[in-house]
Amino acid sequence: MNVTIIGLGLIGGSLALSLRQHGLVQHLIGVESNARHARRALELSLVDEIETDLATAVRRADLVVVAVPVDAMVAVLPLVLDDVAAHQIVIDVGSTKQALLASVAGHPNRGRFVAAHPMAGTEHSGPEAAVSGLFEGKTVVLCDTAHSDPDAVLHVEKLFQALPMRLIYLDGAEHDLHTAYISHISHITSFALALTVLEKEKEEQRIFDLASGGFESTVRLAKSAPATWVPIFRQNRLNVLDVLDEHLHQLQHRRELLAQEDYTALSEQIQQANHIRKILP
Amino acid sequence: MNVTIIGLGLIGGSLALSLRQHGLVQHLIGVESNARHARRALELSLVDEIETDLATAVRRADLVVVAVPVDAMVAVLPLVLDDVAAHQIVIDVGSTKQALLASVAGHPNRGRFVAAHPMAGTEHSGPEAAVSGLFEGKTVVLCDTAHSDPDAVLHVEKLFQALPMRLIYLDGAEHDLHTAYISHISHITSFALALTVLEKEKEEQRIFDLASGGFESTVRLAKSAPATWVPIFRQNRLNVLDVLDEHLHQLQHRRELLAQEDYTALSEQIQQANHIRKILP
Repeated sequence: MNVTIIGLGLIGGSLALSLRQHGLVQHLIGVESNARHARRALELSLVDEIETDLATAVRRADLVVVAVPVDAMVAVLPLVLDDVAAHQIVIDVGSTKQALLASVAGHPNRGRFVAAHPMAGTEHSGPEAAVSGLFEGKTVVLCDTAHSDPDAVLHVEKLFQALPMRLIYLDGAEHDLHTAYISHISHITSFALALTVLEKEKEEQRIFDLASGGFESTVRLAKSAPATWVPIFRQNRLNVLDVLDEHLHQLQHRRELLAQEDYTALSEQIQQANHIRKILP
Repeated sequence: MNVTIIGLGLIGGSLALSLRQHGLVQHLIGVESNARHARRALELSLVDEIETDLATAVRRADLVVVAVPVDAMVAVLPLVLDDVAAHQIVIDVGSTKQALLASVAGHPNRGRFVAAHPMAGTEHSGPEAAVSGLFEGKTVVLCDTAHSDPDAVLHVEKLFQALPMRLIYLDGAEHDLHTAYISHISHITSFALALTVLEKEKEEQRIFDLASGGFESTVRLAKSAPATWVPIFRQNRLNVLDVLDEHLHQLQHRRELLAQEDYTALSEQIQQANHIRKILP
């Protein structure tokens, strides 16, 4: 199988490595608008070649993976679909789905596209961040598969299962709602925590000295790139605002209990929070 | 060296394993008020014996480690100091220091006590949570060492350096301020995040399906025990409220930028948050 990957960052690059590792690809073509990233992707052997003409890169592939930030995605995906033939398949790997699905609704080649979101990542970005095994054992969400051709869905299912990944199916609206709850809010809280600590703790050496695994764990996502995350927050704005309001309410409530010294209620709330252990042991 | 450890949970148990691993102890005596924990500590070979009489356990030790939750600590430490002789040394391993230091200020044996806070832990608790190597390469804060006898400080410094740990020195007030900023707030935000997601996401299977490494990382501390953390928040209440107010302000600000669709400012703020990468690469 010849594969073209558009966008050779963390996700596109890691997928390139994973496809190669599992013997799922013969020839890998990369498309990358950032010249430095394109050069690094070649140096790191993420792809066999860089193709600068999008239409050519698409036409030469059996599978096209669109792995650019979600704001670029809504512009690029329709262009890609313009160029695909009936035997080709296109997937995306984006973190938001409703805007993307709207951008290709009614496109004559819509059936060749399967919307996919592998629930995997790190706080790093760019081709240097690509790691093999990133997707192993993780979940991939396929969205609105009823609008994709059955042969394309079957092919994409087999591909992700071979990585191996677990498949789940949601419609675009459900996807954006649940990812706001479970993924996007974590990034917002982590960015805010980093800014809180940087604001309060003026001595950087103190942060370095005192940071334990707990702090590093909660603040890790704050290292994530704005170019990735601002477009996600923008496209999923209403859902993110909704869960952010609940989070502010929760924090405000915890603040009141502590201010009023209601340690019994605070303890009960922590016990409720501990319930997350039953879901994620 | 004979060591008595009072409180055989995550920290006390892990210290037992670490002392043994580095050949720093001949005989380990445990004191543990929870009968099941005492039995498990013996089964797991964390200690050589359980002693039920506190005064006896203290008298038989060269070094006494007080590793109970910080509310019990302020009651237990003065009792321990009542029983120590001039050749013995007492340390604590608690996460707050001002209340503890006040509880033994002016005690005739105050000089035998060295206040210590190893900046290491996990979200687990109890003797089963004890792991060897927990402290390796981490920082230990020694507090108000001017009030401890020089020979006791020197001994404790050598002990922690052998684990090996990095030593830093703060007074009790500085310690409680900086740990509120860098450690305690992470727990508050993680508890609140868990409650937010449990409140919004009623389908537990969805949380399990969609949780990626990012969510697991930010929510990990929400598994921590209320018996450990409520006393910490209580003793460090004013500092925790102060940093919590800053965090609420940061989150509220991020909410407003998203509500107003000011993506330029949001992006700048995320770039500022990314600065944490320079401190914790």
